[in-house]
Amino acid sequence: MTTIFDAPEDFATTALAGFAAIYSRNVRLVKGGVVRSTKVPKGKVAVVIGGGSGHYPAFAGYVGPGLADAAVAGDVFASPSTAAVARVCRHAEQGGGVLLGFGNYAGDVLNFGLAAERLRAEGIDVRVLPVTDDVASAPAETPAKRRGIAGDLVVFKIAGAAAEAGKSLDEVERLVRLANDRTVSFGVAFGGCTLPGAAGPLFTVPKGQMALGLGIHGEPGVSEERIATASDLAKLLTGKLLAERPAGTKKVAAVLNGLGSTKYEELFVLWTAVAKELAGAGLEIVDPECGEFVTSLDMQGCSLTLLWLDEQLEELWRAPSDAPVMRKGTIIPAEPATDEIVDAEGPQSFGPASEASKESGKCIAQLIAKIADALKEAEEELGRIDAIAGDGDHGQGMRRGSAAALEAAKAAVFAGAGAASVLAAAGDAWADRAGGTSGAIWGLALRSWSNAFSDEEKVSDAAIVKGARLALEGVTRLGRARVGDKTMVDALVPFVETLERETAAGKSFAEAWNAAAKAAQQAANATSSLTPKLGRARPLAEKSIGHPDAGAISLALTARVAGEFLKETADV
Amino acid sequence: MTTIFDAPEDFATTALAGFAAIYSRNVRLVKGGVVRSTKVPKGKVAVVIGGGSGHYPAFAGYVGPGLADAAVAGDVFASPSTAAVARVCRHAEQGGGVLLGFGNYAGDVLNFGLAAERLRAEGIDVRVLPVTDDVASAPAETPAKRRGIAGDLVVFKIAGAAAEAGKSLDEVERLVRLANDRTVSFGVAFGGCTLPGAAGPLFTVPKGQMALGLGIHGEPGVSEERIATASDLAKLLTGKLLAERPAGTKKVAAVLNGLGSTKYEELFVLWTAVAKELAGAGLEIVDPECGEFVTSLDMQGCSLTLLWLDEQLEELWRAPSDAPVMRKGTIIPAEPATDEIVDAEGPQSFGPASEASKESGKCIAQLIAKIADALKEAEEELGRIDAIAGDGDHGQGMRRGSAAALEAAKAAVFAGAGAASVLAAAGDAWADRAGGTSGAIWGLALRSWSNAFSDEEKVSDAAIVKGARLALEGVTRLGRARVGDKTMVDALVPFVETLERETAAGKSFAEAWNAAAKAAQQAANATSSLTPKLGRARPLAEKSIGHPDAGAISLALTARVAGEFLKETADV
Repeated sequence: MTTIFDAPEDFATTALAGFAAIYSRNVRLVKGGVVRSTKVPKGKVAVVIGGGSGHYPAFAGYVGPGLADAAVAGDVFASPSTAAVARVCRHAEQGGGVLLGFGNYAGDVLNFGLAAERLRAEGIDVRVLPVTDDVASAPAETPAKRRGIAGDLVVFKIAGAAAEAGKSLDEVERLVRLANDRTVSFGVAFGGCTLPGAAGPLFTVPKGQMALGLGIHGEPGVSEERIATASDLAKLLTGKLLAERPAGTKKVAAVLNGLGSTKYEELFVLWTAVAKELAGAGLEIVDPECGEFVTSLDMQGCSLTLLWLDEQLEELWRAPSDAPVMRKGTIIPAEPATDEIVDAEGPQSFGPASEASKESGKCIAQLIAKIADALKEAEEELGRIDAIAGDGDHGQGMRRGSAAALEAAKAAVFAGAGAASVLAAAGDAWADRAGGTSGAIWGLALRSWSNAFSDEEKVSDAAIVKGARLALEGVTRLGRARVGDKTMVDALVPFVETLERETAAGKSFAEAWNAAAKAAQQAANATSSLTPKLGRARPLAEKSIGHPDAGAISLALTARVAGEFLKETADV
Repeated sequence: MTTIFDAPEDFATTALAGFAAIYSRNVRLVKGGVVRSTKVPKGKVAVVIGGGSGHYPAFAGYVGPGLADAAVAGDVFASPSTAAVARVCRHAEQGGGVLLGFGNYAGDVLNFGLAAERLRAEGIDVRVLPVTDDVASAPAETPAKRRGIAGDLVVFKIAGAAAEAGKSLDEVERLVRLANDRTVSFGVAFGGCTLPGAAGPLFTVPKGQMALGLGIHGEPGVSEERIATASDLAKLLTGKLLAERPAGTKKVAAVLNGLGSTKYEELFVLWTAVAKELAGAGLEIVDPECGEFVTSLDMQGCSLTLLWLDEQLEELWRAPSDAPVMRKGTIIPAEPATDEIVDAEGPQSFGPASEASKESGKCIAQLIAKIADALKEAEEELGRIDAIAGDGDHGQGMRRGSAAALEAAKAAVFAGAGAASVLAAAGDAWADRAGGTSGAIWGLALRSWSNAFSDEEKVSDAAIVKGARLALEGVTRLGRARVGDKTMVDALVPFVETLERETAAGKSFAEAWNAAAKAAQQAANATSSLTPKLGRARPLAEKSIGHPDAGAISLALTARVAGEFLKETADV
């Protein structure tokens, strides 16, 4: 959805004006486009690029030393007019002729072509290059029928570097045609884009599907498939492109391009898999780029572009450039670090332990296994509750933390640790792996609890009760929450107090525990019922440490699971 | 929607690995984060920043000379663990102590704070700075309760520049606290974000509404309002921040931040309005930034951050930095251009014209007014048709083009132009303003048509018929489309042939025209009915020049409108 605009018909021109204001160091605004705001040597070939708007940073974002001299911008997804192309070229021309680059679309071919004719009639030497990288748009046998997508960046970078190096128009044209012949792209879309002021997207992709071979003007793909994992998507993209690998190619430049709403994190995840595939094909990747380079408003999807390098193209691809979006080269000179980073942590070692304490440790590990199972099952529900007033990650954190705690507890048992060490290791792993507030608090709770145990003795009922009190103290000392703050403390306090009271009154331990778990559950329910009253704005205060109510509910849940485990154990 | 991943629980770590692979020039991966891959002087204060993942480029994208030394990354929206923070700090520490920066969230306060305590116990001097820029999260009287949002970038930039300048830990801390005290942000959200693997977004904003004072972890805003225009949104954002302007402040650094799915074009549009408001408040804007700096996965929305500058902060804000995302400074030295760009085009002048031809010119302008009205009304329908096989912009282009043609025709009439000149001016304006293929083709059609007229004579019926033929020739010569290619030519050919045949057969001109318009309409309908057969993939070929069937339908529409006009005129 395109949401921010005044009048939709002014969207493209206002966006360009805002861009030029931000990047006044690089560009200045002219009617219909931007030209460099820095001096350009007389006689240098002018690289003028352009096309419709809505593809930022294409094309204005590529203007600067080492890349383009000017960019022409049409309306959203519409070719600039012949008059606009000619006008911007006249501003950029420095006596060395013009290399005019654009994506191979009917409207652009028409307007850039007519503008070139008009300029030639005025005595300016102009060469025209429609970029044709999209392998999905036509077969390899008819490359001239292919569309231009993110290959634009790659081809224009070669043009800019060649022109900056002072090469003649003939030579720049030769190199750019070579680059275009050796540039291939393939893309997928997960969702369409919406024009400013339009009520709905230009196309939609069914939920769970992806469109293969998308266009960048809302043109849907050539076929649809189920959305793949990142690994399979990497195989799909690289497979389509490697099919056109020229014999003997050993190096590639690569651009993994996001179309607008696909996030950088997603692109980085995909890049990890793409790099693996390319390396597997015996290719060396040179200066890869990963980000938004040719977008389609808020379209969701991505494309992979490869430039099959030879020596000359590699040099031009590596050359510095100083455009708003493609900044290659050094600003602050710094030598590569040479020290080796040692990140490995060896297996944990534990002190000696008695057989009785080891047995208790095993029992603790079994209990943590039950808790981890229960939290895995409750992940979605806890996330849903947390999302009401928090960021919805509580379920994930609890699942991760408890799984890591189980792993650590098992490792400790395997290493012959006693009860205190098993529980402490589980707590540390929970804190380290769950992340977030609740991870730190749960880790601290388990570690505090373990202080009531030892590695010499069997865990007694009294030690468990004492541990519960230590856990509560640790949590409240660090988290500074009190009863009524709608945190796990709301459930932990009645739990500990009931456990202490019932054991003092001589109840069996399993009975006392279950009474305590019940008290925790009641408190959690009460906290939960208050949630709507929290309103939509959760104030950030020290009081909000811990996840409101989701924390109380997960505590009650683990208390109940532990109670069932204790009952089973007691029954035996 | 987060779409690209393998296992959701590995999303954050895989993304970080991919990022580190792309930016190996800047960073290297360590367990739980990244550190600079370049040498750092011994004794320099280490600026270590971090927080949950899902906020790219925060925080790994800020690592590099002039900015941060290392970044710690937790899981998505979850604080990194105490152990991870401490570990990354140990890698980054160079003997000058550590400035530890993070957003003011409970989990981060807890884990970064505990890590600082642990490091101090190891003899490392650590200062902790929670960023508190979000004015929506707590009142100005309790700044320590405010959350950290995009102000992170600004505060960390000051920290990085101060540390790079070799200042002591005391001095870096003083400057960073000053920067944090003088940094304010306010944001709005139009839509929520979705965690990797989650079925739905963390929150939703009702259609047409925006949430004020959003958080960056899916926390909804503090209130909701109708989505404003860009101008009103700029007033809202600047208003909230200017309310906290310290007395005497004359300069500000500004960051207009996109949250993920809000596009750069939208931000640039908004920036134009924001810059106006700030200038109106008498503020000089220093090195503004506009883009994605602190995101929230694919959240839709934006925030404005201002840093009230004093002399020292201005110097640090302007200082070069060489991180993956914030690259300030020069790569390729270039002097500012000094030549003045003259972009103005004077009012068009026309040759002498007879009164009869001027009368015809007026009539042409009236006809174009009818066509512009009809195309304005048909805009949405034409866009809808075009979206089936094209990019859905045909309606917009036709509306824009015809409106520009009308304006030019009226100006020409006002300037005393004859019939040929009025129509030619209208055609050129249509081509120049409509953009796209259809703009060029329609402009050419009108200009070709005008070649049958003159500025000396009244326009005769015969000249109109001849003009229609010239228009057809121009369009087919340039567009290379033939009947059956599903372009406007499908409608134009029967139109011209019928017009010629019926006038030759002695029909009244209005009758002949209406017969021709009917033939065009029939042909357009036939073309339109073929649309589904086009399939989902429109091949890029010279044949597809012109918008399939939408072009034919708009031609038939204008022919009908012209027919009605002729009939009215004939009736009088």
